[in-house]
Amino acid sequence: MKQTLIILLVLIFGYGITQAQENDRIPAKGFAVFSADDTFHPHEFTRHAIGANDILIETMYAGICHSDLHAAWDEHKAHGISGIYPMIPGHEIAGRVVKVGKNVTKFKVGDYAGVGCMVNSCGHCTFCDMDKEQFCENGTTFTYNSIDRYHENEPAMGGYSNNMVVNERFAIRIPETADMKRVAPLLCAGVTIWSPIHFSKVGKGDKVGVAGFGGLGHMAVQYLVNLGADVTVFDITEEKRADAARMGASRYVNVNNEAEMKGLNNAFDFIISTIPAQYNPLMYARMLKYGKGEMAIVGLPETATINVADLAMGGAANRKVYGSLIGGIKETQEMMDYFVAHDIYPEVEVISANAAEIDKAYRNVQDGKVKFRYVIDMNTLK
Amino acid sequence: MKQTLIILLVLIFGYGITQAQENDRIPAKGFAVFSADDTFHPHEFTRHAIGANDILIETMYAGICHSDLHAAWDEHKAHGISGIYPMIPGHEIAGRVVKVGKNVTKFKVGDYAGVGCMVNSCGHCTFCDMDKEQFCENGTTFTYNSIDRYHENEPAMGGYSNNMVVNERFAIRIPETADMKRVAPLLCAGVTIWSPIHFSKVGKGDKVGVAGFGGLGHMAVQYLVNLGADVTVFDITEEKRADAARMGASRYVNVNNEAEMKGLNNAFDFIISTIPAQYNPLMYARMLKYGKGEMAIVGLPETATINVADLAMGGAANRKVYGSLIGGIKETQEMMDYFVAHDIYPEVEVISANAAEIDKAYRNVQDGKVKFRYVIDMNTLK
Repeated sequence: MKQTLIILLVLIFGYGITQAQENDRIPAKGFAVFSADDTFHPHEFTRHAIGANDILIETMYAGICHSDLHAAWDEHKAHGISGIYPMIPGHEIAGRVVKVGKNVTKFKVGDYAGVGCMVNSCGHCTFCDMDKEQFCENGTTFTYNSIDRYHENEPAMGGYSNNMVVNERFAIRIPETADMKRVAPLLCAGVTIWSPIHFSKVGKGDKVGVAGFGGLGHMAVQYLVNLGADVTVFDITEEKRADAARMGASRYVNVNNEAEMKGLNNAFDFIISTIPAQYNPLMYARMLKYGKGEMAIVGLPETATINVADLAMGGAANRKVYGSLIGGIKETQEMMDYFVAHDIYPEVEVISANAAEIDKAYRNVQDGKVKFRYVIDMNTLK
Repeated sequence: MKQTLIILLVLIFGYGITQAQENDRIPAKGFAVFSADDTFHPHEFTRHAIGANDILIETMYAGICHSDLHAAWDEHKAHGISGIYPMIPGHEIAGRVVKVGKNVTKFKVGDYAGVGCMVNSCGHCTFCDMDKEQFCENGTTFTYNSIDRYHENEPAMGGYSNNMVVNERFAIRIPETADMKRVAPLLCAGVTIWSPIHFSKVGKGDKVGVAGFGGLGHMAVQYLVNLGADVTVFDITEEKRADAARMGASRYVNVNNEAEMKGLNNAFDFIISTIPAQYNPLMYARMLKYGKGEMAIVGLPETATINVADLAMGGAANRKVYGSLIGGIKETQEMMDYFVAHDIYPEVEVISANAAEIDKAYRNVQDGKVKFRYVIDMNTLK
C-alpha cells in the first residue's frame, strides 16, 4: 500500500514535471549587446520550453571566442550573416544537466554537458546524414545570432547566460574527470582545429605549421604535439615565443623577423591558419611541400584573399588550400573524449560574469592580448 | 686506303661541323612585338650556337596560347614578370630536327621534335630532381620573355619563328605518326591539363567539370572523356554547346543561364578551371563534393581572387583548391606519347606566318572567338 502510494506520487509528480517541461518557457539571464557598436548589458529573457528530447543545462563556464567579436560587432555581413539583436554571444558552454525531457537517453540530471556552435539541424539531409550538421541543407540553428527554425523562428541565445535548453543530439557529454574551468573552449576551438587535422590525416613526424597563436592556435599546437608532429608556430609577436616552446613546438617564427622567415618554403606537410585578421595566405601556401602539403583555413578574417593565378604562378603550385568550419557533433564528442583523456586543454583566464569584464576581455582579444582564452565563470552571475 | 680517306674526310668534316655548332650563332627570323601595345612585325635575330647537347629544330607549326597575349601585352607584372622586348612569343612548337650537337642521343636529324614552355633549367635542384623543371630553384629559362642564364643572360626567343635551338633535355620527341598541324598545342595546353588531372588522380566514372571551354578547356574535355569521366563543361556562350557534346561531354552549362546553374553544388569530384578572365572561383569550389572534391586552377587571370573566409563559411568547406603550372619535361613526354597514340589533339585553325594574321588571331583569342586553337604554319614564312 505504501509502495503503491509512492509509485502513484512519483507518477503524478513526474507527469507534472513533464508537463512543465513541454509547455513552460525557461527564464534565463545573461549578457547581451543591443547593436553592433554596443557594450554588454545584463539581459533577462526566456528560452524555449524543455521538449521531450531536450535537456536544461545550468551554465558553469562560457568561453569567449574571436568569432563572438565578429558576430557581436556584425562583421560577417559580406558572408550574408547579419547581427540579430539583442544578441547573447557564446558558443563554448560547459555546465551541468539540471533537467531532462522524457525521451532523453544520453544524459541524466547531474551529468556534465557542453554545447558548441550549434543547437539544432534537420537531421535527415545529406550533411546531417554524414554527421556534418553545421552544413545542414535545411538550415543549421547556430547557438546564437541564428534564427531557430525548430522553435518558431525565435532568435537563438548563446552561452553568456545562466542556462541553455538544447536537444540532446546537440549536447556533448563532458567526462566527469574534465577540468570544467578549461573545458568549455573545446566545444568550438577544440573541434575547429581537430576537424581539419583529421581531414588532412596529419600524423607522427609530419612537419606542420600553426599560423596564428591565439585561442585556436594554441589548441592546434597542443594537439599536433600530442600526435607527434614537428610543430612550427607563426605569430607576429615576441611575447608568445616561450609559450610555444612550453607547449612543445620545435620552432617559433615571428613573421615580422625577416631572418626567421628564410628557408621556410616547400617545407611543411600541413599548415593550419587560425589568423583572424588581414594576412597573406599565399605566403603560407608557399611554405607547403610541393605536391603534398595542405593548408587548412580556420581563422575567418573578412579581407584576406588569394589571387588564383598566384596559386599557379606565385610559388605555390600543387599545394592544396581548403577551409574548414567547426566540426559535426560526432567529431566534437570524439575530440572531447580524446582531449580530456589526454589532458589537452586551452590555457584560460577566468573572468567573472560581469558586463564590464566581458567588454574588457573583448578589447584584449581584439588586440591579441589574451593568453589564450577568456572563460566567463557563470557561477559568479548575480 | 679508300676507306681510310673516307674516315679521314668524315673526321675532318665532322670536326668542322662540331666547330660550327659550338661557335656560330644561328640566324633566325620570326614575328616580334616591340612593346606592350605594339602589333607584330617581322623580326630577324640570331639564336645561341648549337651546343654539344643542343638540337636545331626547323619550326613547322607554332601554337598561339592565351598566355602569349598576357606576355606580349605585359599583363603579368603583378606576378613579377615584366615583358622583355623585342619579344617573340610562342611556346607550342613542333618541327623537325635539322642539326644535332655531338653529345645528343635523344634525337637524330630528321626526327620530329617539340618545344614547350621551357628551354633550360639547372638540372640538379630539388625541383629538377623531381622532374618539375618549371620550378627550378636556380631559375628556369622559359621559352620566351625569359632571361637565359645558361646563355649569357640573353633573352630567350619563342616559337613564332623559323627555328629553335634547345638542349635535348627540353625537347620532346614527337612520334612520326603525329598529325603535325595539330600537335604543337599539346606542348603547353596538353601538359597543362594533363598534369593536374594526374595530380588529382581523376579516373573512370568521376564526375568532373571543365570551367572555360577554350584552348585548354577543350583539351581537358577530350582527355577526361578518354579517361571515362563524366564531363560537364562550363562556359559563358551558347556557341560552343554543340562542340562540347561532340567531344563527349555529358552536359553543357552556360553559366549565364540561371536555370542551368541549379543543383550543381556538392556534385563534382574534380573541376579544372581554365578561365583566363575575371570570374568567381568560389562558385566552382562550392560545386565540389564535400570532403572529396578538388579544383585545379590552370587559367591565369590577373584579378580573380578567393576570400579565404569564404572557403570555410561560403559553402565550400573541405573542398581543396590548388594551382598547377604547365608540367615537367617527363610528364610532357608521357602526355605527348599518350595523346598521339589516342588521337587526342586540339581543334586548330591554321593561319599563315604573317604579322597581320597573328594580330587578328590575338584579337579573336582575346574575344573568345577561336575554336579552339590558332596554329601558325611556319612553313609559309617568307
